[in-house]
Amino acid sequence: MAKQKKGKADDGGLREQLRVPSGPVDLTTYDTRATPGFSGSKDEGKVALEGLEAEVSDWQERLFAEGRKDGERSVLLVLQGMDTSGKGGVIRHGAGLMDPQGLKITSFKAPTAAEKRRGFLWRIKQALPSEGMIGIFDRSHYEDVLIARVRNLVTPNVWNRRYDQINDFEAELDAHGVTIVKCYLHISQEEQKVRLQARLDDPTKHWKYNPGDVDERELWPDYMDAYHAAIERCNTPEAPWYVIPSDRKWYRNWAVTTILLETLRSLDPQWPQADYDIDTEKKRLAAT
Amino acid sequence: MAKQKKGKADDGGLREQLRVPSGPVDLTTYDTRATPGFSGSKDEGKVALEGLEAEVSDWQERLFAEGRKDGERSVLLVLQGMDTSGKGGVIRHGAGLMDPQGLKITSFKAPTAAEKRRGFLWRIKQALPSEGMIGIFDRSHYEDVLIARVRNLVTPNVWNRRYDQINDFEAELDAHGVTIVKCYLHISQEEQKVRLQARLDDPTKHWKYNPGDVDERELWPDYMDAYHAAIERCNTPEAPWYVIPSDRKWYRNWAVTTILLETLRSLDPQWPQADYDIDTEKKRLAAT
Repeated sequence: MAKQKKGKADDGGLREQLRVPSGPVDLTTYDTRATPGFSGSKDEGKVALEGLEAEVSDWQERLFAEGRKDGERSVLLVLQGMDTSGKGGVIRHGAGLMDPQGLKITSFKAPTAAEKRRGFLWRIKQALPSEGMIGIFDRSHYEDVLIARVRNLVTPNVWNRRYDQINDFEAELDAHGVTIVKCYLHISQEEQKVRLQARLDDPTKHWKYNPGDVDERELWPDYMDAYHAAIERCNTPEAPWYVIPSDRKWYRNWAVTTILLETLRSLDPQWPQADYDIDTEKKRLAAT
Repeated sequence: MAKQKKGKADDGGLREQLRVPSGPVDLTTYDTRATPGFSGSKDEGKVALEGLEAEVSDWQERLFAEGRKDGERSVLLVLQGMDTSGKGGVIRHGAGLMDPQGLKITSFKAPTAAEKRRGFLWRIKQALPSEGMIGIFDRSHYEDVLIARVRNLVTPNVWNRRYDQINDFEAELDAHGVTIVKCYLHISQEEQKVRLQARLDDPTKHWKYNPGDVDERELWPDYMDAYHAAIERCNTPEAPWYVIPSDRKWYRNWAVTTILLETLRSLDPQWPQADYDIDTEKKRLAAT
């Protein structure tokens, strides 16, 4: 690992550090409380996150501007993780630093019958970001190889085919200018218990709790198996997976936002050139 | 006018101050540089805006929570104004204080042929906020009695009927739990010239400039006539118009956000009660 700087990603970039290597995946080997690439405290982490606002907003506006002219590029951030892992928190505190006009956020619940009839990717395609936008998926097509597999919502034959279908789909998106960033927010089973407990203890959080959350929790090992398969089989150069240690909320928010920032930086969108004659327009305006 | 407090709306509420009285409307009688309800400086105005973040976010989350349970209510903020009046700026700096997950922002451009065939309200209805959401329209169905009237895009007979159609539509929304807040961002013709000039002078703003902006600018008096008619004829108790003096960007952002805050406050959404037995769930969770 390269040297670390306080409050900053190290020189190699956070993406390099958190990117899942190809090959078999075993999430139990990851420390959910670790803070790779960041050596400061919680308070320093919060300050560091705020410190990303100016740069990430600037890149976002450049991408947006590009999309308003000839640009075809967009970014799609896919957030996955067990209940309480903080998908909503990342959107609120990380994406919330950016201009909401440039964000297209979609939260996927259980598909309706009408959606199921159209195939599992149909509703995903409806929600893709258009040119210049940053799309964010709170859950995604990966649920169709996660809960669908764990809960036997479809036959093994059906979910087994979906990994390749997802890879084909994501490769096609990449070929059409959609840069895909997939983050698995990794919490421990113990941390989930603490967070569910907090939802039961705090009346302002009761609405976030669902008795079904405990049912899912009881299937933790099955979900981990399903995540191992999903991450391993759909970890492509075009659409890589990142594992974000997420027991520390401040680190999780900083890390995902930093990965998004590094992604925008590497896209390097430029302010569009004027497609009109500037001097002519100045004279026209002056005459009004 | 009631007494003013520094950095705060006065006791009567900003809505009361900026709400357009019923009867004939003459925008030339409004001072576009005024700062009604705020007696501080520009810097104090920016601080005051930031100071709204905690409360407006809290109400937004309560509304969102309500919508996730049985609630049917939502808010729709309609932003109208001449080019450069700052519709985008209000969204970025005002709405940007809130959680983007609870916002549904739609920017309306010239309608496509497919949209026109469906009637002018069709695409508007597609973009309405669902339960618990705050919808924001950057331009709206009002363009269909503004540019459509000024530019003779439809016959007078057609646009003339639209005022009543809009009132019926908005009354129906109100009856279904959509609280409508319509803000006209009022800039002077001189201020628009300064802002268009700035877009021509700054390469990072060239993409925001369109030669058509000057064409529209030349029709300023016609647009004011169209705004007078729109505001007068569609200024209903269910869907009132507010005129926001907008030559000062900081005031504009603070004023619209304050009106939104007062609206949320008056809706007074409450954290939903648990629809499960809390003790049972605590025991179930403890057993995992």
